[in-house]
Amino acid sequence: MAVSPSTYPRRLLPLFLGLFQGALLLFFALFITYDEPSAQAEDTSLVVNQAYSTFPFFQDIQVMLVVGLGLLLTFLPRYGFSALTHNFLLLNISMQWALVLQGLLHHFHHGQIHLDLHKLLISEFAAVTVLISVGAILGRASPCQLLVMATCEIPLYLASEWVIVTCLGVLDVGGTITIHVFSCYFGLGVSKALFRATQQPLHPKETPTTSSDLMSLVGTLILWVFWPSFVAVLCQPGDAQHRAILNTLLAMTASAITTVVASSLLERDGKLSPGHLQNGSLAGGVAIGVVADMAVPPVAALALGSLSAVVCVLGFRFLTPLLARKLTLHDQCGIHNLHGLPGILGGAASVVAVLVAPKDASGSLPSQLSPAGGNASEVAEGQWGVRGVGGQALCQAAGLAVAIGASLLAGLLTGSALRLPCLARPPERLCFDDSLYFKIHEQAESPGADSSAEEGALALQEQV
Amino acid sequence: MAVSPSTYPRRLLPLFLGLFQGALLLFFALFITYDEPSAQAEDTSLVVNQAYSTFPFFQDIQVMLVVGLGLLLTFLPRYGFSALTHNFLLLNISMQWALVLQGLLHHFHHGQIHLDLHKLLISEFAAVTVLISVGAILGRASPCQLLVMATCEIPLYLASEWVIVTCLGVLDVGGTITIHVFSCYFGLGVSKALFRATQQPLHPKETPTTSSDLMSLVGTLILWVFWPSFVAVLCQPGDAQHRAILNTLLAMTASAITTVVASSLLERDGKLSPGHLQNGSLAGGVAIGVVADMAVPPVAALALGSLSAVVCVLGFRFLTPLLARKLTLHDQCGIHNLHGLPGILGGAASVVAVLVAPKDASGSLPSQLSPAGGNASEVAEGQWGVRGVGGQALCQAAGLAVAIGASLLAGLLTGSALRLPCLARPPERLCFDDSLYFKIHEQAESPGADSSAEEGALALQEQV
Amino acid sequence: MAVSPSTYPRRLLPLFLGLFQGALLLFFALFITYDEPSAQAEDTSLVVNQAYSTFPFFQDIQVMLVVGLGLLLTFLPRYGFSALTHNFLLLNISMQWALVLQGLLHHFHHGQIHLDLHKLLISEFAAVTVLISVGAILGRASPCQLLVMATCEIPLYLASEWVIVTCLGVLDVGGTITIHVFSCYFGLGVSKALFRATQQPLHPKETPTTSSDLMSLVGTLILWVFWPSFVAVLCQPGDAQHRAILNTLLAMTASAITTVVASSLLERDGKLSPGHLQNGSLAGGVAIGVVADMAVPPVAALALGSLSAVVCVLGFRFLTPLLARKLTLHDQCGIHNLHGLPGILGGAASVVAVLVAPKDASGSLPSQLSPAGGNASEVAEGQWGVRGVGGQALCQAAGLAVAIGASLLAGLLTGSALRLPCLARPPERLCFDDSLYFKIHEQAESPGADSSAEEGALALQEQV
Repeated sequence: MAVSPSTYPRRLLPLFLGLFQGALLLFFALFITYDEPSAQAEDTSLVVNQAYSTFPFFQDIQVMLVVGLGLLLTFLPRYGFSALTHNFLLLNISMQWALVLQGLLHHFHHGQIHLDLHKLLISEFAAVTVLISVGAILGRASPCQLLVMATCEIPLYLASEWVIVTCLGVLDVGGTITIHVFSCYFGLGVSKALFRATQQPLHPKETPTTSSDLMSLVGTLILWVFWPSFVAVLCQPGDAQHRAILNTLLAMTASAITTVVASSLLERDGKLSPGHLQNGSLAGGVAIGVVADMAVPPVAALALGSLSAVVCVLGFRFLTPLLARKLTLHDQCGIHNLHGLPGILGGAASVVAVLVAPKDASGSLPSQLSPAGGNASEVAEGQWGVRGVGGQALCQAAGLAVAIGASLLAGLLTGSALRLPCLARPPERLCFDDSLYFKIHEQAESPGADSSAEEGALALQEQV
Repeated sequence: MAVSPSTYPRRLLPLFLGLFQGALLLFFALFITYDEPSAQAEDTSLVVNQAYSTFPFFQDIQVMLVVGLGLLLTFLPRYGFSALTHNFLLLNISMQWALVLQGLLHHFHHGQIHLDLHKLLISEFAAVTVLISVGAILGRASPCQLLVMATCEIPLYLASEWVIVTCLGVLDVGGTITIHVFSCYFGLGVSKALFRATQQPLHPKETPTTSSDLMSLVGTLILWVFWPSFVAVLCQPGDAQHRAILNTLLAMTASAITTVVASSLLERDGKLSPGHLQNGSLAGGVAIGVVADMAVPPVAALALGSLSAVVCVLGFRFLTPLLARKLTLHDQCGIHNLHGLPGILGGAASVVAVLVAPKDASGSLPSQLSPAGGNASEVAEGQWGVRGVGGQALCQAAGLAVAIGASLLAGLLTGSALRLPCLARPPERLCFDDSLYFKIHEQAESPGADSSAEEGALALQEQV
Repeated sequence: MAVSPSTYPRRLLPLFLGLFQGALLLFFALFITYDEPSAQAEDTSLVVNQAYSTFPFFQDIQVMLVVGLGLLLTFLPRYGFSALTHNFLLLNISMQWALVLQGLLHHFHHGQIHLDLHKLLISEFAAVTVLISVGAILGRASPCQLLVMATCEIPLYLASEWVIVTCLGVLDVGGTITIHVFSCYFGLGVSKALFRATQQPLHPKETPTTSSDLMSLVGTLILWVFWPSFVAVLCQPGDAQHRAILNTLLAMTASAITTVVASSLLERDGKLSPGHLQNGSLAGGVAIGVVADMAVPPVAALALGSLSAVVCVLGFRFLTPLLARKLTLHDQCGIHNLHGLPGILGGAASVVAVLVAPKDASGSLPSQLSPAGGNASEVAEGQWGVRGVGGQALCQAAGLAVAIGASLLAGLLTGSALRLPCLARPPERLCFDDSLYFKIHEQAESPGADSSAEEGALALQEQV
């Protein structure tokens, strides 16, 4: 289907979004309400206020996702507008969709769902998976394809998270396994099924410029700064949250430095690669999430941060080209290096952390390892008490395996659905190009002879 | 008065600012002090600490105004420096001026004014009106004209706010009516009186480039993220603030998605317009302010957000060109679409919200509708108890009418004052041009043959 | 030593960083641990929670240093990547190094160092000195030289801070003397010893472009917004912190306006200089730090902010060229104007503030002047009680003198060490050039005939 820019079907997107927004309004009108303060018992009010006390963390995470991640994706020089807007749009639509699904699944009591900030936060976490997965196909997929992907991914994520956290009792306060690993392999599955065995040649618009790389690095730095809030938001306020913050800070700082070491040693001329910096600096944050609130010593956080940066840079240098060549697997932003490999590393670290965790005399749950306020932590705590150290370690490993397997499968299926012709994949020469979706002005950035002519004409018109 | 760049009177600005700063020092020396901790009674200390607990919100708002709004205004490609600096300067000068005036008016006890963070915050809110109004004449007015406008607008805003909130008892925790509607029509009035019946032809420097549009979008995203802090900062911590935050989040998310729908459907080729995105995504935040802490159901927040985005995009598409053609009304940034129309919509919504608010048995103030800690909320509460539902709804409508009428009149008068020749309006061909006010270097961004020649010369000089 | 870009020794940096990171891991493995919650007494837990309650301030400071300061340094148009990355790298490495040294020096109890957020914060403060000093030699020094500088500066800073705060009992809650003055003269000493009597001619890549100046201004605005958090983070929560925040806000607002006045009056054509705005707006924050929590009236904060902005702009206009001509002192970012002169002004102001501080009846420590939670505040408090007003004033002056003298000497010695040939100073023609350190793509930003040819070729390949 050779689509030209003039006949490209751009009405699909507003149609899809408009229908969804209408359905959302209906759903909200029927089922969603706020708590009524007059009806509140004291402890309900306490719960509400706890939810509301996470507001500063919530804002930090919003900055990360809307501004930081958005800017990180602007490394494609002629696709900055699309990257920023699609990221923003997908965050909103995915959050609303997750809110609806979670409302239906978990919170349906007496025909009314009581909305609070905690529920929005949980929905935001679900939306993160979409934003990560998009990285695999950024620039080569249409907004409609991305929307369909989001529509499929959110329920699949919720199912996978339910299996991993609630059924298996996996401890994962920072979402390393449930969010990062899941979304990475989902994205890779989509990419594989969408592009099949087609080699994607280097597109002329794909190469970053200095200024687009710089904007992207600013995005990385914003993500780097606020990452501790993302990891620690679901911890119990107090010691566990304090420890999660410290562990994340240590892992991030080790990542930043090790990335420079690894990038410089791996390149033939010793120069740093912007792509390595943009991603490797964050790898520690991905890996630390799953053990951040556990009783790991500070050195482990540092080591995990360093190791994940090394793994991330090695992935960019060797694995991504290999996968592209051998498996014709296309990974535009290198999400496998930033989310997949460090995520698996973190998962493995959590197995070790559980195994070597100090046990107190009574043999029950060690107080340092109490899972801090995750989605289903009481369940996990209880099972952990029953099943003992070995069992919990096994569960962590099983959770990792489930996340990888389920997401790959789900991604492959979703990717096949995205091949539907009606979803209007952009033609190859208009990939990575804002002008397909936006009314933007050509970069006539050279104000020379022509502008002075215009100025002369204006000078004549002057009337003061 | 044909002003050439070389004779343009640039000393006026420092003179004006210097005099003002001197007067401010004198005023502070005579009247302003801090609370003395030793003299504090317990409850005074409590009040001080409440003020100080708003610091995180205050910081969020500073980020919005200084960075977010500043970047939003940089869509004019050759006027970025001026937009950012004038916005920053006007924020500071307006805040100081509002601090002085509010000190004189409200807080003059025993010859001393006790400064705290709450008073700074209230002054910051006053300064916001100036930053919004400037949008109508951005790029075509001189810094001196903007300063005179700020000097006139702050006292007029304080008077209007006193009438609306204190006299009429209007409930408006997020400043929809008092700030957004007022400043919009003030700005339009200024624009009308300043430019009279002169058609403003499209200026060659007025068209955004891709990169200036991108920076502007980043500004929008920063504003979008922190908007809940702006709306909720004056609410009582607790349930009311929690609800205000949730309502604002819902309205913002609905706005973001609806803007894409509306923009894509309205353009002939279905492409999104950057200007729509930059403004429409924020329209929900403007509209929700006045009802954010009221007992509205979540679906109302969503609907209001959607509706205001639609109204905003329609305004850009049809109303702004119409007003420019029929009324020769010039609105550079489209403030009527972002602040005027959604503000009126919010005001109308508040009338409805008051009318349908659930009443409890005793018939007095419904607990869900307690106005949360606004500037004069006790007055409002009392009146609302006395005047009943119908009276309060009438007051909301009256407040909206007062805001529109008073601001238009005040703006027209102020705009006439700005025509004084001594205020040095920039000549037409130097509008939208940083080089009139800043020592900037021409964008010789093509590092080609010339730079290698320079490098060769430098290589000869090398001395290590 | 004529180094060509191809033979430039780029492996030094990863070697140095890798060794350091390995040593750090070893040190952490041996000595660093977290508090064990089970072993905690009640009051220990309180201390831990106090540390952890500073997290929002800590995040603000991270944003300042990583994003704000990083962007501020991108005013060099072809050195943005290096400025941002070196700043980020130096922050991390200096913080780790300070953590190790402070661990060894202060916190070594029973063979274990207990890590908490407060210790990370103190290390971050130490790292700030490095980031400031770098400004003197930015663009002309290699990353290895910067690292060696950081390695030397951190212990020297800790020693100087120990003398000034612990021995002399200087009150300096915002680090005006201990951080800003110290790091400024250290940087100038390094610059003098490194470049000796060599005149540094204006480099063709040194001139900012409009867009690099704009990015830098955004950095300034981010620093400006979050500065109160930097000054107030070490204050006791409550009245002292509230007052520190207010004083800083007042000083920042006065700085911003006065910078415009001074810059416009000093330039012959009345145009504003971007460099003045980028620095002068922050001068008030530097100066106010030392008196922010003292019993100064609000007018003093305003006056100090104004005065320091004037001093800063005057420094840029007259002193920097003079020092360059007479002393061949090279100060790339003008740190003497932003940190040196306002720092000295602040130090002088603290002498006056101590002398005129109100004394209460008993003659002991006035309650308004209680030093708020600085590193060694109890010592200072005690000494201040003993030594009286005159003694304390003398100590403030002595602290300032020590900071200047010690840092100059230490800087000169460090700068001599940086002349070691193995540290690979960049050749003159590759100064201010990202391409020496980064794999960046040449800015082929003109998508003209060539790209359409590529598009044609791609169109042929299309296969959907």
